[in-house]
Amino acid sequence: MRTYKLTIVYDGARYQGWQRQKTTGMTIQGILEEAITQVTGRKTEIDGSGRTDSGVHAKGQTASVTLSGKVDATEFRSNLNAALPEDVRVKEMLLVKNGFHARLNAKGKRYEYFVDTREKPDVFTRKYCYHYPYELDVPAMQKAAGYLIGTHDFAGFTDKKDELSTIRTIYDIIIEKQDSKIRVEYYGTGFLYHMVRILTGTLLEIGTGQKQPEEAAKALKAGNREYAGFLAPARGLFLKDVYYE
Amino acid sequence: MRTYKLTIVYDGARYQGWQRQKTTGMTIQGILEEAITQVTGRKTEIDGSGRTDSGVHAKGQTASVTLSGKVDATEFRSNLNAALPEDVRVKEMLLVKNGFHARLNAKGKRYEYFVDTREKPDVFTRKYCYHYPYELDVPAMQKAAGYLIGTHDFAGFTDKKDELSTIRTIYDIIIEKQDSKIRVEYYGTGFLYHMVRILTGTLLEIGTGQKQPEEAAKALKAGNREYAGFLAPARGLFLKDVYYE
Repeated sequence: MRTYKLTIVYDGARYQGWQRQKTTGMTIQGILEEAITQVTGRKTEIDGSGRTDSGVHAKGQTASVTLSGKVDATEFRSNLNAALPEDVRVKEMLLVKNGFHARLNAKGKRYEYFVDTREKPDVFTRKYCYHYPYELDVPAMQKAAGYLIGTHDFAGFTDKKDELSTIRTIYDIIIEKQDSKIRVEYYGTGFLYHMVRILTGTLLEIGTGQKQPEEAAKALKAGNREYAGFLAPARGLFLKDVYYE
Repeated sequence: MRTYKLTIVYDGARYQGWQRQKTTGMTIQGILEEAITQVTGRKTEIDGSGRTDSGVHAKGQTASVTLSGKVDATEFRSNLNAALPEDVRVKEMLLVKNGFHARLNAKGKRYEYFVDTREKPDVFTRKYCYHYPYELDVPAMQKAAGYLIGTHDFAGFTDKKDELSTIRTIYDIIIEKQDSKIRVEYYGTGFLYHMVRILTGTLLEIGTGQKQPEEAAKALKAGNREYAGFLAPARGLFLKDVYYE
């Protein structure tokens, strides 16, 4: 038995998120497991670095998988990609040490969120950014990001009630204007359920002046969902990278 | 009765091209006529500036339509967009003089073709460019474009046998490298069936060195399809603009 780390790119637009489901719709994990089962001839399960919501994309999701026998990783990856639909690609397959687990061993994650601030939604990018046609005060958003960076209790920035711990560390938040697009990058130890999307909604409300930058700090202190901003839509979000030691 | 000119943007990925069809699949014209019929309450037909193939996109297709009674174009356009799927948008609706016809009055057209030369296909742009993972000699392609610009008989650059005339004028072909993307823009009086895609296939074969730039001139003179290059896939092609007097 050997363990492999897969790095996966996907267009999440037509999937019900990462996690395999018994009943409803197609999921990325489900599609990958089916393809691996098809290539190996044995029912195989994989462990992702974490779930992504329905409609969220990935440029570098990771998963671990244990395969029996000797496998040529290059050939296996190529067979796997042939068995997968074109909107899910395995871009790397690496032999790692036994016991490696994509979620348990993850040390950090990087996400990107794209906002299109043009007046009208764009037909060609509508599934890959959030159309939010308002002028955004980027310096105000950057000021708010300053309060959010660091180790904090993010209880007010999740929609899940029963987390063991809501303390996380955000190493950096980069907010960039690219013509009429805003790109927000989040780099941290890990993120709670909906956290990146709520952080983005909060920053957007600050960008339009509905909230002051200081209210990001207040929302942290309050630890209550109602102080943070709205849940930004899934389609603007990309899981960019997962880091290991 | 008043005549209007519509300017339309569409993602052609899931459509069977522009032209309304009785039996198979959804078409852009069909979808637009249905939406107009829904808004006006009367069965309405439109005339496009020309057909686009299945999978071809548009940033500025045009169509003419005659409507009875007084119509507030801003309101009508907004109702029309509400009735259309998100991948087809009417971006402008202008009152024009009676008798205007989007195809018969067109004086010129501009198309764009996008080629992605990276090693691996990109999950997020796969429907909007042609993945052609070869290094392209852009100066050679530009030299060939020089032979193609002008008024010529393009009989060798179409897949339709029974055109009344195969003489067309290409005003300009611009070939630009943008990182690992190649953008080719075609501006001319009009283009024959498949002509832009065959021009692109020819330029790509010249870019990889399979053909010499002079062979573009030979293909023109020969007037025979077999001398020109392959039919580049629809997905890289965008109808960008249609010009009128």
